[in-house]
Amino acid sequence: MPDQSKVSRRKFLGGTVAASAALAAGGLSAPSQAFAARSIPAKWDMETDVLVVGFGAGGSAATLEARAAGAKVTVIERMPTGGGAVTRSGGIIYMGGGTRLQKELGIADTRESMYNYLTSAVGYGADTELIGVYCDKSPELYDWLTSKGVKFKKTFLAGKYVVPPTDDGLVYSGNEEQEPYRTIAKPAPRGHHAQAPGFSGHAIYTPLKAAVEASGAEVLYNTQAKALVVDAKGRVAGLVATSNGKEKHIKAKRGVVLTTGGFGANKDMIGQHCPAYKDCGVFIGTSGDDGSGIRMGQSVGTDVRLLGEAIAYNAIYGPHESLVKGILVNDRGQRYVGEDNYGDWVGDLTARHYPASYLIIDEKIMQGIPEDARKALQPDAPVNGLVAQADSVAELAKALKIPVPLLENTIKQYNEMSAAGEDIQFQKNAKYMQGISAGPFYALDFSPKGIWFVTKGGLKINKKSQALDPEGKPVPGLYCAGTICSQIIAQHYPGSGTLNGQALTFGRIAGQNVAAEKPI
Amino acid sequence: MPDQSKVSRRKFLGGTVAASAALAAGGLSAPSQAFAARSIPAKWDMETDVLVVGFGAGGSAATLEARAAGAKVTVIERMPTGGGAVTRSGGIIYMGGGTRLQKELGIADTRESMYNYLTSAVGYGADTELIGVYCDKSPELYDWLTSKGVKFKKTFLAGKYVVPPTDDGLVYSGNEEQEPYRTIAKPAPRGHHAQAPGFSGHAIYTPLKAAVEASGAEVLYNTQAKALVVDAKGRVAGLVATSNGKEKHIKAKRGVVLTTGGFGANKDMIGQHCPAYKDCGVFIGTSGDDGSGIRMGQSVGTDVRLLGEAIAYNAIYGPHESLVKGILVNDRGQRYVGEDNYGDWVGDLTARHYPASYLIIDEKIMQGIPEDARKALQPDAPVNGLVAQADSVAELAKALKIPVPLLENTIKQYNEMSAAGEDIQFQKNAKYMQGISAGPFYALDFSPKGIWFVTKGGLKINKKSQALDPEGKPVPGLYCAGTICSQIIAQHYPGSGTLNGQALTFGRIAGQNVAAEKPI
Repeated sequence: MPDQSKVSRRKFLGGTVAASAALAAGGLSAPSQAFAARSIPAKWDMETDVLVVGFGAGGSAATLEARAAGAKVTVIERMPTGGGAVTRSGGIIYMGGGTRLQKELGIADTRESMYNYLTSAVGYGADTELIGVYCDKSPELYDWLTSKGVKFKKTFLAGKYVVPPTDDGLVYSGNEEQEPYRTIAKPAPRGHHAQAPGFSGHAIYTPLKAAVEASGAEVLYNTQAKALVVDAKGRVAGLVATSNGKEKHIKAKRGVVLTTGGFGANKDMIGQHCPAYKDCGVFIGTSGDDGSGIRMGQSVGTDVRLLGEAIAYNAIYGPHESLVKGILVNDRGQRYVGEDNYGDWVGDLTARHYPASYLIIDEKIMQGIPEDARKALQPDAPVNGLVAQADSVAELAKALKIPVPLLENTIKQYNEMSAAGEDIQFQKNAKYMQGISAGPFYALDFSPKGIWFVTKGGLKINKKSQALDPEGKPVPGLYCAGTICSQIIAQHYPGSGTLNGQALTFGRIAGQNVAAEKPI
Repeated sequence: MPDQSKVSRRKFLGGTVAASAALAAGGLSAPSQAFAARSIPAKWDMETDVLVVGFGAGGSAATLEARAAGAKVTVIERMPTGGGAVTRSGGIIYMGGGTRLQKELGIADTRESMYNYLTSAVGYGADTELIGVYCDKSPELYDWLTSKGVKFKKTFLAGKYVVPPTDDGLVYSGNEEQEPYRTIAKPAPRGHHAQAPGFSGHAIYTPLKAAVEASGAEVLYNTQAKALVVDAKGRVAGLVATSNGKEKHIKAKRGVVLTTGGFGANKDMIGQHCPAYKDCGVFIGTSGDDGSGIRMGQSVGTDVRLLGEAIAYNAIYGPHESLVKGILVNDRGQRYVGEDNYGDWVGDLTARHYPASYLIIDEKIMQGIPEDARKALQPDAPVNGLVAQADSVAELAKALKIPVPLLENTIKQYNEMSAAGEDIQFQKNAKYMQGISAGPFYALDFSPKGIWFVTKGGLKINKKSQALDPEGKPVPGLYCAGTICSQIIAQHYPGSGTLNGQALTFGRIAGQNVAAEKPI
């Protein structure tokens, strides 16, 4: 696992002085940057057909599709180089319903199975229309990606991983094989992993970036969107950007596509919308995820969705699968979840309710962890590090400030279930039940500071990637894709690769539709 | 407790057919009513200085203050009569810092203690500016209410109640006396209870309504706001309302005050913004709480805050204080909270995580419940009813489908703590620890269907009650108060009477400020 907590810490500490002072005083300040919509300027500095804001996965996909349709495309990117959250991701794209890779590996999958899995796995509030389109476009997305040079190795890797450590091409990245999902939908692995060992987000982005550069699209780096421009009829007609401190008015004759990311790097907006996730320490994104695009969208009357929910991810099997043989306890020594659960559920429970959380393992489990994985669990590790070690459960409890009888009782109960071969409490798979009895005993830190998080909510869009007002009508001239908008994820994260998958799917759709708009 | 679950059920089932069908299909439909902003009409049908939308607590306060400042005021109310959520409330208003009632009862309180309590009790994301104003205006609010004919009995009632069953005037309605708050701020009772036994919301509303009627304000019933009207400069200039199926354009020369309530009666918006609260069954509000005002505000570019959070309230001491001697367990037989905790925390944990939750008591506890309170716990009770009774814990567990060893273990552990006189698990007050050992044993239903809820999030306002855009600037001509906007409550509900208190405080402030606007 790369040390992303440092990136995160820097980002959080790098906020404005005003914001930090307000936070220290216990409150939150108003946003410091201007994003209110403006009216048509006396003179445009530049004009293009399609203006894409942000050069990550969604922006690349929109650009390539709009170029393919013959539109003139300008991409503005605030950083000196492109990237976005995809480059920090595990490199998985959630695709299925019979992709070429699935077929080549002899894996049967249908649009129906994928749709049924996703609609139930995302939980209450699913946008079935968006999920339907996502599934419809999935096999085609695979072919499109490979045509742009993204490579997937023709191998399936069995096992439970957050991100495969290998360069294998296909994995189970969600809960498809777990109940109740395996009954609801025929399971199939849908985590398509771009070919490179481990975290391979760059193996998605690098070829897409090269394709954009070869496409004839104009890319302006160090150029930050400041405000949308709206004409007298309420149509988004362009944008004001700043570059080297100077304002530039860019007319977008066919429309603007916002792919500026979420708001995970904006502590003010976390307080405003999803305070429960304030302690999650490992933000998966960039400093560009400051919510500026969401605020620009709101300024022209775009509706929002699920701003209070975030993906909070903490998989016990993240550091190594054998850790699932331990028990996760809160500061009262209680187990609160099956340790083999998907990281989204474990992380959400922890983030919302437990300031301190520990994985308790014994010497036998410790011996089962390979040497390289064990290195990542040292006391100085930024996350999941060893916080206590003792010869008895009672001594361990004291070190953790958990009342001794509570932790002793939990371990006694767990060992009885292990002996009986069934976790009647949380139905952890029996293969992980071996009891915790061989001292010394260890506690690893699974507190919120080790939780990976990404904001989930954002602007509301339809199946054409059009921004929607609170009435459900499109905001003319405005499209969105990626974490700036709420797409197929609702109450729960259905599996790794969904964030990349939806940015690419709705980015492509945005590019196709904006290019077909009548120019103003 | 009144049977509010029926009100709620009727409200939820009363949604549009389209919405219900979409929900049945697992998804959510787009809103069916139009709320997009409109431009200035060719002709206004009516004009006024101040247009107040909604005739509840916030609307009454705004109206009375704007009238006191000499403005012409028109109130529109969609229902055939006024009311709003205040009439369904317990009749408590959270006030302090030295109100006349506190002084008359010899209770010392300061603005500083009240401010320190509120800023810490609402948790992360507190808007310290709004809380500051709320505290500043609190003693004055009490005097203002009594001048309008709202009565408070000069008595203090000790004890722990959701709503006092008596007509006493002052109670502890929050966690002021509990740690860590009693260390952070000197405790004082601040729950001012309008004089009538039990739920006394009508004792707040009735005199305010009479005062509005006597004030010279024009009240139009059966008149529903449809869309805000915005002039060329972006100022809110009036509103389109419907009455008897006809549209009416009402010019508001000084401004519009929206006090239309929250969105708890709109299942679509719950899915869109706070899906975690979908199963809460006892909505405290009216069918008017459909979020229409929030959507109108968004349509003119107003920012939102905390839409993902709701107040989910389930106090174990609600039916009767002696129930706190029982233990609350989830479907795994685990305790998950101290049973004497404030209802906001109990309800939130339950709503978010436990589809089934039971209060386990024994015969000794049952005998301690007065006859009248016991009646409310019968098997046919709409909430908190008896769901199982058995001679042994094992039989009770079987009836509840909880694995027998889990419930037995929890009760054994709890009885050991009771014998030792200390709840080392959740620090429940020792006075409630008497063990659960005398059969028969009973299980009462504390599942989400019995949770009272109110949406917490809404439009963003400043200390002048002005609607704010995402940049933090006022939306010209637009004011808000009450549950349509996010006010002093942040992550947690600080105590009963805060909803009424903030509607009245920010309603008064809105009325004062809108009346002082330059007319257009």
